[in-house]
Amino acid sequence: MKPVIVVHGGAGRVFKEREEGCRAGVVRAALQGYALLKQGGSALDAVEEAVQSMEDDPHFNAGLGSVLNEKGEVEMDAIIMDGKNLDSGAVSAVKSVANPIKLARLVMEKTKHMLLTETGAHLFAQAMGIPETPGDKLITKRSLERWKKSLEADSNPEEFQKDLGTVGAVAVDSEGNVACATSTGGLSNKLVGRVGDTACIGMSPELAADTALDYMKTRVGGLGGVIVVSSSGEWAARFSTKQMPWATVKEDQLHYGIYAGESHTKSVDEALASESKRFQE
Amino acid sequence: MKPVIVVHGGAGRVFKEREEGCRAGVVRAALQGYALLKQGGSALDAVEEAVQSMEDDPHFNAGLGSVLNEKGEVEMDAIIMDGKNLDSGAVSAVKSVANPIKLARLVMEKTKHMLLTETGAHLFAQAMGIPETPGDKLITKRSLERWKKSLEADSNPEEFQKDLGTVGAVAVDSEGNVACATSTGGLSNKLVGRVGDTACIGMSPELAADTALDYMKTRVGGLGGVIVVSSSGEWAARFSTKQMPWATVKEDQLHYGIYAGESHTKSVDEALASESKRFQE
Repeated sequence: MKPVIVVHGGAGRVFKEREEGCRAGVVRAALQGYALLKQGGSALDAVEEAVQSMEDDPHFNAGLGSVLNEKGEVEMDAIIMDGKNLDSGAVSAVKSVANPIKLARLVMEKTKHMLLTETGAHLFAQAMGIPETPGDKLITKRSLERWKKSLEADSNPEEFQKDLGTVGAVAVDSEGNVACATSTGGLSNKLVGRVGDTACIGMSPELAADTALDYMKTRVGGLGGVIVVSSSGEWAARFSTKQMPWATVKEDQLHYGIYAGESHTKSVDEALASESKRFQE
Repeated sequence: MKPVIVVHGGAGRVFKEREEGCRAGVVRAALQGYALLKQGGSALDAVEEAVQSMEDDPHFNAGLGSVLNEKGEVEMDAIIMDGKNLDSGAVSAVKSVANPIKLARLVMEKTKHMLLTETGAHLFAQAMGIPETPGDKLITKRSLERWKKSLEADSNPEEFQKDLGTVGAVAVDSEGNVACATSTGGLSNKLVGRVGDTACIGMSPELAADTALDYMKTRVGGLGGVIVVSSSGEWAARFSTKQMPWATVKEDQLHYGIYAGESHTKSVDEALASESKRFQE
């Protein structure tokens, strides 16, 4: 079984200022997850790694760079799910961890519960020995400026909302197991305590993905994006919004894009070479 | 279109001490919701009313009578959903409101969000003018005794967990609209901040109910219960656990039971007469 990973950086709009960073960010995340898969790592490890990479990347609305709530604070949600047994773990409204996805995985593996919120998630992070990252360390200049702008009388919050940039990853490993992970800072200027559907377990990834986009459009008139991987290694990255940064690696070939119809292809070796060049610059 | 309501008081075990109270409680809730439907009320109003009735009833694990978390506190989750437009509202880990279901409905109607948790839910309840009910007013003698017992070295928490008694209602109104509502105190002795799947929006009620029980059994070996109502007024109350208190009213006929195969039938008039007799006693 050839492993596959697909990642996305949020369906919606990608403002020009974020475009290059997002394209590079999804590529990097996909390559990092794929490297684990190639070494025989599990789909679960790969999606955690890919999402962590995007949480650490200030171009995405997850971890560092999360949008701010009405009080100017970061409040994040994340979920991880193992397709093998449908085990899942999630956290919501967490404020002081750098990588909510790692905490979600610990909820899955170290508790009998599925979702811990706010205070309980914080206590659990402490009990697990996760270093506390003060929320203001996760606030970037961009998110602070946007939040301030959104408070101005003539602001158009709808415009900012479209540029969401939540992140996610799905993967299938060499044993044919699938897994998925998602992480987000949620909606710009949201009420304190607002939890998105990110942290809410729905149907199985396969079942949900097949129907989700159509359903969203016909039933509530909404636009969105979906990434899918089947246990036989078929994959898809689809969106009904204007843009969605996505990247996938299968059989050592990287594909990625942001706009509908945009798909670049590179070998993993070539992509890794330009990655290391980027870091040297 | 003839309105229908179906309510349940939790799939699992119902200990002898709760049996009569639960049977009476689901009947009362179904009758109260049905009374609204008969007056032309919406399915949404009916499920809110029915769930509120069970939240106020100490026999159920929701509102008054909720089980306690590891610290001996009440932390409740609730959700309400309007099948007409799939609008939904939910709260999680709320500690000081008597009726989480009413707060969930306000989240649906007064915010742009779907789910508020803990602090944010508390701030929102204050902003909506909902009177604060100190958490310890929601603790019954039964839940306190059980919680204390669960702390004893030789306790069997699994046994208590089965006697969960979360509550829910589905209804279809005279215009053919469906709605659902659920409320719970969650798991006995749970970690602080644990949120159940109650507060998580899944697929549509119809789609979810059709597949949920089978899926639960084959995929994760779990047992549970489902109540369903279709927009054409067909209904079902099914469970794979040993017991689930349920009641339904359709065309002025009440049906209710707790055990598999148990189904009593009464006219609404007859049921209301014994209800008022019960209250006079």
